[in-house]
Amino acid sequence: MSDFQPDERLARDSDLLTKIGLCELRLMKDKRWPWLVLLPQRTNVSEIFELTPLDQTMLTFETVLVAEALKKVTGATKINTGALGNIVRQLHVHVVARSEGDANWPGPVWGHGTAEPRTAEETKAFAAKLLDALTP
Amino acid sequence: MSDFQPDERLARDSDLLTKIGLCELRLMKDKRWPWLVLLPQRTNVSEIFELTPLDQTMLTFETVLVAEALKKVTGATKINTGALGNIVRQLHVHVVARSEGDANWPGPVWGHGTAEPRTAEETKAFAAKLLDALTP
Repeated sequence: MSDFQPDERLARDSDLLTKIGLCELRLMKDKRWPWLVLLPQRTNVSEIFELTPLDQTMLTFETVLVAEALKKVTGATKINTGALGNIVRQLHVHVVARSEGDANWPGPVWGHGTAEPRTAEETKAFAAKLLDALTP
Repeated sequence: MSDFQPDERLARDSDLLTKIGLCELRLMKDKRWPWLVLLPQRTNVSEIFELTPLDQTMLTFETVLVAEALKKVTGATKINTGALGNIVRQLHVHVVARSEGDANWPGPVWGHGTAEPRTAEETKAFAAKLLDALTP
């Protein structure tokens, strides 16, 4: 794990909120949607099936944990999860809170328009709410 | 499980290939991409976190199994997996083989253009290859 470095583009486009077991939990710098990314701290992995079975189970567990907290905090209509990686090949899982009438609803968030960054205060407030919901 | 019925839209837009443990494995009627859907045979579930922990682990296991077989059969650049459900609320997981230069590459498949159906023979040939790759 010591060699692990987040992909440069992911690091630029998101803020690290915390580390939970396997993954870094990151918040995308885009306030159009509450959009999180789980980044397994493993090197040279781009497909879920390249993780060990234990890591696969951990990733599922952490995805579920984060999705549930995000649903609670946002009251969203639907949580969207996805591992695409067509641009950034380092394995990462998107967890996005979607609500009727949001940008590109009911289409996907990926590749749609241009990111709208939060202020530092907005980021701090959102992170605090989410981390609180993640703490049992 | 006896009450389980696939959502009408999913049933119309995809063909049942087989059942593997928890999920129906279905092939989308769209030859622009090799596009599979895993449909857990559970009622009234729209989010992964609403599944029991055992079902969550089964779903991960089956997703990985199918993703690896799809990669093997297609030689795709990247497998895309996603659980969106903004339109069809019944929980389902997309597993899509993506290759550089395919329709909407590197963007997502969801919501892009219009499906191009396979002939019955093309469906049969694809299904046979995939099921063969799924059999140890």
